[in-house]
Amino acid sequence: MRYELYYWDGIQGRGEYVRLALEEAGADYVDVARGKGGQAKMTKLMQSGGTPSFAPPFLKAGKLLIGQTANILLYLGEKEGLAPKTEAGRLWTHQLQLTIADLVVEIHDTHHPIASGLYYEDQRPEAKRRAADFLAQRAPKYLGYFEQVLKANQPGKGKHLVGARATYADLSLFQIVAGLRYAFPKAMKKLERKFPLVAGVHDAVASRPRIRAYLDSPRRIPFNEMGIFRHYPELDAG
Amino acid sequence: MRYELYYWDGIQGRGEYVRLALEEAGADYVDVARGKGGQAKMTKLMQSGGTPSFAPPFLKAGKLLIGQTANILLYLGEKEGLAPKTEAGRLWTHQLQLTIADLVVEIHDTHHPIASGLYYEDQRPEAKRRAADFLAQRAPKYLGYFEQVLKANQPGKGKHLVGARATYADLSLFQIVAGLRYAFPKAMKKLERKFPLVAGVHDAVASRPRIRAYLDSPRRIPFNEMGIFRHYPELDAG
Repeated sequence: MRYELYYWDGIQGRGEYVRLALEEAGADYVDVARGKGGQAKMTKLMQSGGTPSFAPPFLKAGKLLIGQTANILLYLGEKEGLAPKTEAGRLWTHQLQLTIADLVVEIHDTHHPIASGLYYEDQRPEAKRRAADFLAQRAPKYLGYFEQVLKANQPGKGKHLVGARATYADLSLFQIVAGLRYAFPKAMKKLERKFPLVAGVHDAVASRPRIRAYLDSPRRIPFNEMGIFRHYPELDAG
Repeated sequence: MRYELYYWDGIQGRGEYVRLALEEAGADYVDVARGKGGQAKMTKLMQSGGTPSFAPPFLKAGKLLIGQTANILLYLGEKEGLAPKTEAGRLWTHQLQLTIADLVVEIHDTHHPIASGLYYEDQRPEAKRRAADFLAQRAPKYLGYFEQVLKANQPGKGKHLVGARATYADLSLFQIVAGLRYAFPKAMKKLERKFPLVAGVHDAVASRPRIRAYLDSPRRIPFNEMGIFRHYPELDAG
């Protein structure tokens, strides 16, 4: 079966968590909206059928049309061996992913604290306040949580969030670290010293053969100032 | 088996979505943090064990300790018959719940657009801007989405989000409407005219016998200005 991923062209965004899972699984998939006429196809499919999505990404898997990033990963985790098979393991991996999803919202809102429909330039003073709080309070809290989870996971020896193997939660944590390094290089340098295991997951995931090949390919869209992780130097903490 | 729900005492918050599911299921449960010494027990359990939570709510179900509201509902939906049994039905119900979770974040941020750790009074001008955008742009978009889902769901005859029976997604949509009525009574009056099926789900859920009994009991904490839905008249749109 060939999966069809639907997500905005030009940004990594929330689609990236799904791309990383599909790439690590070596799955056959097409990134529809990046092809000719794909954006129109996406808009049409998003609002039709029995299970419309509020927003991309969504994944067509045979007859299933699945929306919401964490929900797609829940599905792929089971089908593609990117999560434990036990009920406890599946729920735990999903719980971690949902916490990452919460973090993603907070990262997005550092540059859009007032309205997602307005430009950054229209909410810059507010963004400065929110980003400062994020870097001082929220980022350390989230990264500290994942550090604690990594440390406590003995089967993973500090290298995996769940069990002894890579799951989609590890892939997503990689993306968080990569994105934070891009958006807040100065602040992240300091933060990473406190959370070495989190940084270690990034490096280990980046060197997995399929992920390495993906990151080196044109399929990986570069970070930019239209996505979730944006580098506005005035928001970084020196 | 007696479920143990862990959530902050004194607010409905995200725990309420779990409470509604447990109540509708007629499940045997204890709301631990509302009992003597419960808050300390919650803090301890949250950080210990193999599956610590970033934040409440979390649910103890036998040996399982499950965090993240939508994840708890995914579990309860299956165990307590509050979601379809098919894979497609389970994923779809969960997708709707995750979209409700996104909406809950946006509602929370109408009064806390800058920092969850600061008082509302420290971010009032920003809250005014964000709430105005929420009521003008985001609330209609979300409620319109759920209206469309209700309309398209023929087996549910416009009364249920999924299939022909009540699911945890219906219960959660009830809570959204109840909360928005509390927080933004003026704006909601106008919005509800546009989205009658959404309002209908609220009224239908509220009159289900177990939910009715719950709402009339002291187990239902009243809305207040410490929770997610807060009534600050200056944020409401006249």
